[in-house]
Amino acid sequence: MEKGKLLYDGKAKQVYATDKDDEIIMHYKDDATAGNGVKHDQFAGKGVLNHTISGIIFDMLTEAGIKTHLIKKLDDRDDLVKKVEIFPLEVIVRNITTGSFCKRTGCKEGLVLDKPIFEISYKNDEYGDPLINEDHARAMGLCTEEEYEEIKKETLKINELLKEFFLSLNLKLVDFKIEFGKDKDGNILLADEISPDSCRLWDVNTNQKYDKDVFRQDIGDLIETYKAVLARMQNK
Amino acid sequence: MEKGKLLYDGKAKQVYATDKDDEIIMHYKDDATAGNGVKHDQFAGKGVLNHTISGIIFDMLTEAGIKTHLIKKLDDRDDLVKKVEIFPLEVIVRNITTGSFCKRTGCKEGLVLDKPIFEISYKNDEYGDPLINEDHARAMGLCTEEEYEEIKKETLKINELLKEFFLSLNLKLVDFKIEFGKDKDGNILLADEISPDSCRLWDVNTNQKYDKDVFRQDIGDLIETYKAVLARMQNK
Ligand SMILES: Nc1ncnc2c1ncn2[C@@H]1O[C@H](COP(=O)(O)OP(=O)(O)O)[C@@H](O)[C@H]1O
Ligand SMILES: Nc1ncnc2c1ncn2[C@@H]1O[C@H](COP(=O)(O)OP(=O)(O)O)[C@@H](O)[C@H]1O
Ligand SMILES: [Mg+2]
Ligand SMILES: [Mg+2]
Repeated sequence: MEKGKLLYDGKAKQVYATDKDDEIIMHYKDDATAGNGVKHDQFAGKGVLNHTISGIIFDMLTEAGIKTHLIKKLDDRDDLVKKVEIFPLEVIVRNITTGSFCKRTGCKEGLVLDKPIFEISYKNDEYGDPLINEDHARAMGLCTEEEYEEIKKETLKINELLKEFFLSLNLKLVDFKIEFGKDKDGNILLADEISPDSCRLWDVNTNQKYDKDVFRQDIGDLIETYKAVLARMQNK
Repeated sequence: MEKGKLLYDGKAKQVYATDKDDEIIMHYKDDATAGNGVKHDQFAGKGVLNHTISGIIFDMLTEAGIKTHLIKKLDDRDDLVKKVEIFPLEVIVRNITTGSFCKRTGCKEGLVLDKPIFEISYKNDEYGDPLINEDHARAMGLCTEEEYEEIKKETLKINELLKEFFLSLNLKLVDFKIEFGKDKDGNILLADEISPDSCRLWDVNTNQKYDKDVFRQDIGDLIETYKAVLARMQNK
């Protein structure tokens, strides 16, 4: 499968056309950004690491019955995926309180929740991905009520699978962001990536951070951190 | 009923103790604030106007079966009300898009919605009353799932009643904010006030604003505007 035209150059990945209308190539770059692109750097090898980590996770989810966009890995940075129309939603689950939620509301950090928080934000860089609710999403035409319910149900299932998966690596899944899209037949598929860019992962014993917060907060080496996550996955 | 100790001095009202533990007096002041208190002014007679308007609305809602805190009017600025533990939530319904929602998300202004938007924000001046969802409210201990469901159901009922009421005055109910609390027996009651301070009202024919936006945006005389709303109510 040859890379065609560059369709989109994002903050962490590029999207290329293929010779099929309903398939694209997703290419992982070495860029890291934070604070809606305000902070930006490159880390040699980051793209390969995230591609590998996300691939292992997508395979695990597929085996557990989650429908995803992934068709096949092409090389160490490229995936062939079903082209979907992405819902402009950042779909977020929180198992432990931290991050933007605590900053916005003053909620205590580190609360371990009995029941996860499910939230969506409007994926829009100009407006800083503002938090919205299902009624806002419907009013703005971002998804229908039925699509919202399916996305929510699927996401909570994915949360259970990811929580168990990371716990087996001695990592707590604090929170994560995923994206969904609709393929040409109307199926809702998990798209984009799942990696330390989009998950918060804390060591079960020490609470050490194994995710992009080491870059956001300048508290560790991004490449060493992501390598450590991958090592735990491969030594499983 | 004598006014006891001043318990709370708010942005638009004062709350006084009475000789009964479970009853308080709510006193309407002449103050108007906007932008979380950044803009502040006084308008002679505003308290009397809002007290009268809110009283008529609460009576209408009570007749329609809504449970409220109102026991009785004491004079032209004071109500005797059941003391409740206020849920720290601003409970909001939007029938037409405008205001903070459009500002935060870039949603088009003036969309007339088939189905109203229901939203809650965390009533907390320090954090600027941030939007939250039901999971956040539960995680922060602001209300339980059951309380959220009851508040939502009651609010959507109140929206239908208010929409019809204002339409009979040739006013469109664009959006509004209400508060609920729990009395000592655990009943959830509509509390606080409903007035042009807390509703957006647009003339059916001209879209002229009949609410606090005339003060927020400096586009009209607050007292004349509120008097005009009351006149429509009394000429009914
Ligand atoms: N299967 C897919 N089909 C179409 N677009 C996708 C698919 N999976 C992910 N995308 C989109 O591709 C882009 C990936 O690049 P990324 O660097 O993450 O972009 P962004 O800066 O918008 O987050 C994102 O906009 C994402 O929504
Ligand atoms: N029945 C009630 N029992 C107890 N508190 C109430 C009741 N009704 C309203 N309140 C509270 O009384 C205060 C009214 O004053 P207000 O000027 O509106 O205050 P604020 O500046 O907090 O909005 C509000 O904090 C409101 O939540
Ligand atoms: Mg992205
Ligand atoms: Mg108030």
